[in-house]
Amino acid sequence: MSLDFKIHKTNGPARRATMTLPHGAVETPVFMPVGTAASVKAVPQHLLEELDAQIILGNTYHLYLRPGHELIRRMGGLHRFMSWERPILTDSGGFQVFSLNELRKVSEEGVEFRSHLDGSSHFFSPEHSMDVQIALGSDIAMAFDECTEYPADRQRARRSLDITLRWAERSKRHFDAHKHERPWAQSTEHRAQNAANADFAGKVPNLFGIVQGGMHLDFRRESAERLVEMDFPGYAIGGLSVGEPRELTREIIAGTLPYLPADKPRYVMGVGYPDEIAEYAAMGVDMMDCVLPTRAARHGLLFTSEGRVNIKNKKYAEDQGPLDPACGCMVCQRYSRAYLRHLMTAQEPLAAVLNTLHNLAFYLDTMKRVRAGLAVQTTAASPPL
Amino acid sequence: MSLDFKIHKTNGPARRATMTLPHGAVETPVFMPVGTAASVKAVPQHLLEELDAQIILGNTYHLYLRPGHELIRRMGGLHRFMSWERPILTDSGGFQVFSLNELRKVSEEGVEFRSHLDGSSHFFSPEHSMDVQIALGSDIAMAFDECTEYPADRQRARRSLDITLRWAERSKRHFDAHKHERPWAQSTEHRAQNAANADFAGKVPNLFGIVQGGMHLDFRRESAERLVEMDFPGYAIGGLSVGEPRELTREIIAGTLPYLPADKPRYVMGVGYPDEIAEYAAMGVDMMDCVLPTRAARHGLLFTSEGRVNIKNKKYAEDQGPLDPACGCMVCQRYSRAYLRHLMTAQEPLAAVLNTLHNLAFYLDTMKRVRAGLAVQTTAASPPL
Repeated sequence: MSLDFKIHKTNGPARRATMTLPHGAVETPVFMPVGTAASVKAVPQHLLEELDAQIILGNTYHLYLRPGHELIRRMGGLHRFMSWERPILTDSGGFQVFSLNELRKVSEEGVEFRSHLDGSSHFFSPEHSMDVQIALGSDIAMAFDECTEYPADRQRARRSLDITLRWAERSKRHFDAHKHERPWAQSTEHRAQNAANADFAGKVPNLFGIVQGGMHLDFRRESAERLVEMDFPGYAIGGLSVGEPRELTREIIAGTLPYLPADKPRYVMGVGYPDEIAEYAAMGVDMMDCVLPTRAARHGLLFTSEGRVNIKNKKYAEDQGPLDPACGCMVCQRYSRAYLRHLMTAQEPLAAVLNTLHNLAFYLDTMKRVRAGLAVQTTAASPPL
Repeated sequence: MSLDFKIHKTNGPARRATMTLPHGAVETPVFMPVGTAASVKAVPQHLLEELDAQIILGNTYHLYLRPGHELIRRMGGLHRFMSWERPILTDSGGFQVFSLNELRKVSEEGVEFRSHLDGSSHFFSPEHSMDVQIALGSDIAMAFDECTEYPADRQRARRSLDITLRWAERSKRHFDAHKHERPWAQSTEHRAQNAANADFAGKVPNLFGIVQGGMHLDFRRESAERLVEMDFPGYAIGGLSVGEPRELTREIIAGTLPYLPADKPRYVMGVGYPDEIAEYAAMGVDMMDCVLPTRAARHGLLFTSEGRVNIKNKKYAEDQGPLDPACGCMVCQRYSRAYLRHLMTAQEPLAAVLNTLHNLAFYLDTMKRVRAGLAVQTTAASPPL
């Protein structure tokens, strides 16, 4: 079995578990840094490892366009291509195509869209999304979905929900028929050099279903129940962080989780701020991803135990203190706020490197604390997350 | 004494030495990575240390404009500001101002120029350049010079040489009167935390003279001899790499070195390609700096044992081999040419990080091999540099 999900401890709906994927074990709840185009922007892979990033996310849409999934397959898959031997999850491309807005056209068969790079025409179907994700060799692939925009009335959300369910079936059928074609089976020579990982070859990737339904709780329940009937090894809640208020995000997550099996991983896509990811973990979410820590870092927005810091602010110009006195990351241990501000002001490329290292450390440490809290709590009392 | 220069071995004009500066010992011949604005672009300081960079260069002109030398002084000096406790050399600002071309006006007193950042007016004199470099707290400051453009006729080169010599005297007088004002004397609290470096405080920075004279060997000799009379702890050959052919660069270096004292460090500014720095070291040059490895890296031009590689070239799209099979750097050990090409093509910020790490490793390893060759050679036979 490729996905073994062992729950060690629960505290109300929250749980501490180990998810075993073809490329290794992941301790949950987990935050997954986003590595859109085969790189977590500005961070060398060995520093990601030092940060204890357990699993990263790759974007199918971007990798399909550049360098192309067939090239990555020939290179032995995404892990080998980018030299990242820990687990990788890929999205389905649905959300990215959805973001193109005016450049796309949805039909029952799939989505026609134009590349944001050169305007060229492309077509993604559930089957094609599966082919791409299998070629990339991700540990967890995502079913091809139509992400409902916000706001969406019931008629629009209904239509989106229905097509997503039909696409989920097609995704699963195609994925199950082709999942053995993952590239790492073909790269045993390379794997043999890495004894600890030599057993990758015999394993197969996993496909997660995605719950849609807009901000309508009855649709969310229906979407979840019908997906569960299809029996995926894990489930995601999609269509959030599309502009809705934060209260509504929480409400949809809280109203959907009860309809997802407790013995399988539950993933909320595209969230959130540090306090949100801790909160959602306490609500029983096992996996989350978000571009926020990496993207905000490149704009100088940094997350700390004392709140958000816009490091470009003039008040930090002569601040010799560390970015976050409570943080043990390599940035806070070595550099001052004054230096980090200077790097942003002078548009030095090192700014993106250091800011991203800190923000990721802060997110990963947040989840580490959540897991530690779940490890020691044995009563039903809520831990101070 | 701040600068102790101990020659261990010579081979013809080449020598292997240890130069002891306030912030530590430097093994020569040495290549100094350029860290223009308090950062060797795209490389975190701890990775620079892992690369065995012994000393880096800061640009006085850039740091004066942003974040400002007085701010850096208040932060405890450049070492502390950027968290780099190994030696730093600063240029005088002369070459940078010279590069502004239409934005500058030279008089006996100094140079009036406009900032490339905002067009504001500034004035640099030898005295002011010294004040700035002392505020930065460099281990080696450079005399304020007028860099002669290429080509320059004898009249132009004569005038430039004369003013540079008068400025060298003014630089030295002002520097000697104020060198005790270096910022690290004021930051003993910080230093005390670092036992190995606790003796910084008692030391003073060094000022090197700069030989000018255009491409006229008799002027170079005159410049060198008159500078030597002023008794600097080290000497640089400036005004090279300004557009002249490579043959001429070598000729000027070869024709100037004999007039510089053999028992003091000799520094050629702003050179060169990997084979050039090895060649100049064999000719007796002890120190070199150049933006080439770092700037070329950001444009995808990489130096390898097999020659130059333009990593953007399509022929590397599926090349699974390392950038340089003979290189032991962290980039060549981990990533393929295909991946490095993808990072450039996708304009990923990681491209600058990895490319710079490799190019610096290649330059620093080149000099390490030169030093190793000098360590074992005891005959006059030329080592295969």
